[in-house]
Amino acid sequence: MAKRLKYWGWGYEGDGLSPSDRDALLATLAAGYAIDATGTVAVPGLGDISLPLPRLAPPPALVPLCAQDPYERVLHSFGQSQPDSIRIFSRDFAHAPDVVAYPQDEDDVAALLEWAGEEGAALIPFGGGSSVVGGVTPDVADRYAGVVTLDMSRMNRVLEVDTLSRSALIQGGARGPELEAALKPHGVTLRHFPQSFQHSTLGGWIATRSGGHFATLYTHIDDLVENVTMVTPAGRMESRRLPGSGAGPSPDRLLIGSEGSLGIITEAWVRVQGRVRFKATAGFRFPDFVQAAGAVRAIAQAGLFPANVRIVDGVELAVNGAGDGSFTLMVVSFESADRPVDTWMDIAEECALDEGGVPDADWRTNPDAHLMGAAGAWREAFIRMPYNRGVLTPLGIISDTFESAITWDRFEAFYRNVRKATHDAIREATGGVGAVSCRFSHAYPDGPAPYFAFHCAADPGSMLEQWWEIKRAVSDAVMDNGGTITHHHAIGRDHQPWYERQRPPLFGDVLARAKTHLDPRGILNPGVLVAQDGYGSKTT
Amino acid sequence: MAKRLKYWGWGYEGDGLSPSDRDALLATLAAGYAIDATGTVAVPGLGDISLPLPRLAPPPALVPLCAQDPYERVLHSFGQSQPDSIRIFSRDFAHAPDVVAYPQDEDDVAALLEWAGEEGAALIPFGGGSSVVGGVTPDVADRYAGVVTLDMSRMNRVLEVDTLSRSALIQGGARGPELEAALKPHGVTLRHFPQSFQHSTLGGWIATRSGGHFATLYTHIDDLVENVTMVTPAGRMESRRLPGSGAGPSPDRLLIGSEGSLGIITEAWVRVQGRVRFKATAGFRFPDFVQAAGAVRAIAQAGLFPANVRIVDGVELAVNGAGDGSFTLMVVSFESADRPVDTWMDIAEECALDEGGVPDADWRTNPDAHLMGAAGAWREAFIRMPYNRGVLTPLGIISDTFESAITWDRFEAFYRNVRKATHDAIREATGGVGAVSCRFSHAYPDGPAPYFAFHCAADPGSMLEQWWEIKRAVSDAVMDNGGTITHHHAIGRDHQPWYERQRPPLFGDVLARAKTHLDPRGILNPGVLVAQDGYGSKTT
Repeated sequence: MAKRLKYWGWGYEGDGLSPSDRDALLATLAAGYAIDATGTVAVPGLGDISLPLPRLAPPPALVPLCAQDPYERVLHSFGQSQPDSIRIFSRDFAHAPDVVAYPQDEDDVAALLEWAGEEGAALIPFGGGSSVVGGVTPDVADRYAGVVTLDMSRMNRVLEVDTLSRSALIQGGARGPELEAALKPHGVTLRHFPQSFQHSTLGGWIATRSGGHFATLYTHIDDLVENVTMVTPAGRMESRRLPGSGAGPSPDRLLIGSEGSLGIITEAWVRVQGRVRFKATAGFRFPDFVQAAGAVRAIAQAGLFPANVRIVDGVELAVNGAGDGSFTLMVVSFESADRPVDTWMDIAEECALDEGGVPDADWRTNPDAHLMGAAGAWREAFIRMPYNRGVLTPLGIISDTFESAITWDRFEAFYRNVRKATHDAIREATGGVGAVSCRFSHAYPDGPAPYFAFHCAADPGSMLEQWWEIKRAVSDAVMDNGGTITHHHAIGRDHQPWYERQRPPLFGDVLARAKTHLDPRGILNPGVLVAQDGYGSKTT
Repeated sequence: MAKRLKYWGWGYEGDGLSPSDRDALLATLAAGYAIDATGTVAVPGLGDISLPLPRLAPPPALVPLCAQDPYERVLHSFGQSQPDSIRIFSRDFAHAPDVVAYPQDEDDVAALLEWAGEEGAALIPFGGGSSVVGGVTPDVADRYAGVVTLDMSRMNRVLEVDTLSRSALIQGGARGPELEAALKPHGVTLRHFPQSFQHSTLGGWIATRSGGHFATLYTHIDDLVENVTMVTPAGRMESRRLPGSGAGPSPDRLLIGSEGSLGIITEAWVRVQGRVRFKATAGFRFPDFVQAAGAVRAIAQAGLFPANVRIVDGVELAVNGAGDGSFTLMVVSFESADRPVDTWMDIAEECALDEGGVPDADWRTNPDAHLMGAAGAWREAFIRMPYNRGVLTPLGIISDTFESAITWDRFEAFYRNVRKATHDAIREATGGVGAVSCRFSHAYPDGPAPYFAFHCAADPGSMLEQWWEIKRAVSDAVMDNGGTITHHHAIGRDHQPWYERQRPPLFGDVLARAKTHLDPRGILNPGVLVAQDGYGSKTT
């Protein structure tokens, strides 16, 4: 029998932190940062959750596609954000969807859109449900007659592989492991590995402009898309499949990042690659994060295009048991399907040493250098990280991340100001101290994508309010210091107010008009990208 | 005194083909392809051109920005397309703009938009005037009270250079040589070199999704843009300057490719690079174009990202005096600001030899290999090419190009069918034979951008109609065989019918709504991207 997904956090039932990893995490937070548990809440059993009665009943023709049992409704009530987690443990399921629908093809999608429109119900597209920004959380205005969550997991096939052009036609609901398994026999890979890889889908990646694990060159899903097919309430859109085009504004780029507000991404041709045969990973230690950032800049501007070049500060290493907090770690990797990558690594190493880096583990003599030293320890922690929240939230410990991007000229001030704002906000909101860390998730020749994490103890009775107070302050700091409100986590419901500040107002108008045309009844993911009339933001 | 631009063709007055180059071109066309001059028309003198009386008079405040003398009106009557050239030599200036305005800053742009809107006049944005698709040709419906051409050449400054982030803020009207001259003292380059480089502008490149000379990686201007500022009739839009973002659909991507139909691109932050210090270029000969294409594919899929990898077929080499027609030439180049590129070239050479290529000139022993052999000869011809039309049109010889992009799986059929359709169309339209050639202008891992050229003798009395007959047939063939109607030449007025076929209809609706919001009076570049109501296409 297939493993069942948890409805209270990341992953499958039975998966999670081992008791020793859990204890180590709690001990580090307590001993290193004075962050202690403030309470204990049990995982809500399905029977403990009171769900509102479903307000919708699917018509006979759609019944076979629809589920309304408590598990399905609860599972689709939230994504994977910190406020989602707090509300799950508070047993706050007032906004559970009324129906969860599983289309099997585009006709099903069109029929479900049609029915939801006729009913006046909101429709929430749901890929893997990994949104950390409230993108799948069905908080919609009272004017909707109900909520249908459209789960794409049955449209999960790789339909065609063109090895000559290195591209593949894949359905929107295919999760990372599913699509990679189907590509593997053809000797190719999409090689797009967001941290959510296991529990997120191609359609979700395109809808949210996902950033892959690889830090340079073609890392955003945007660059891997050859065409997009979307089913909207106004009809089907399919762009021409092309390796490049200069024919007017790109139709794909309107759909990429549309976050379910314009339509459902049913399939896309994407660019795949030969499978990696050669790899090298090296780690370097720097006394200071800003100094390490200089080395990232040197490598990013040298035209080397490493698979990865990433720095992780002392706090993040310490919290994750990968260092004593005294150094910043840089990890550089090169990968190739065709030939050894040592030449490239030699040059990157030169850049790192020039900027004051000290080798962590010797990549020349150790093909497994990426598994050794601080780099190896952090790598293991990285894979575990999504499970942390399920442990910490019920103990009253806030554990969250936010990310941005900034040009190099403004990076240092951005980093110092946003970090300070986060510390200040934690103190202001909770009265206590927090652990605030930073790494680079991605690096471009013109600037990095800083990724912040923070932990702090909250008052169990007002954890959600305290989180919002911190979220507002750090988001303001990101915007005030010139960054983007998101580099790859997306807007969802949580970032909407700052997104409205970031985008040019006239572009917001154009997007609203696009939505009115494609989704005339305004049923698609209300409140995401385009504001919901008469429904106040959760943030104010 | 500054050189004056020709109003009858490419470049400055006094520049053009040398008599010997001219004679060689005509001799090759006649001897090799039976293409002979069918007439002789003199260059129209300014006094020979009858211009309609201006229908507009700028208000006093705008008079200092405006010109209405015959030279200015004639100069701005056409771009650089084949039908433009035919109409110039036919002395057909019925659609000359009534006013040519030269804004000096954004306030001027806004004031001119406002005035044109109040007058009910069409406004044609004009960068360097190099459009080969009718993008600046003021053929507009009678409902407009007149035409104002907005020439951006006085907004031509590099405003700021950020060497740390390797980016620069540049005004939209800066031509290639101007902006490179201003960047040079900072040790950086935009390194975007379309064939029109000398007579085209940053704003024009962004508006038309220009493709640079470099054939792989960051070749489209799209990838070099950090932000865009546009002044529209509805106000000013400025996107946030960022190295990367995942915040909703990209606002920049709506403006990139908007071809003057939504607003005027006044300035943009763009990504610059260190100046090139190391180069290597190698040429290889292949017996067959499709075989050479296989070598391009191998190199494009090997993750090498050469500055260039391009193939030119025997006919194109022969027409341009760079070969005897018996072989296809491949040119591969690597460039770096930081280090020797021989390692990369070694691997590319391996790919070329594996696929049956024979070295043209030895790159290892000749640092000037790019100036030698067939590669060197073709390179010289490439620089001269824009001048050819000014010689050929008045002799009744059609000389035109069109370009597309296609995935590798469909490339071979596309190439054969489009080439055959071009030959057939020439025979059908003119009763004679033509020279039809192909090269790759750009190459991606998933497909090439085939670039076709054709020459044929026309009936001087119906040259425009014969050209349209051929254009319609080849454009249909490009679309029927799965290509894009343009890879980097843009849509303009000439490609509009095929663009409407190519883009998803719902995307066309969205674009029309964007235009209605940003340009409510519909004055901006009418007929480009969004159809003009009640004005039939030139193509039918």
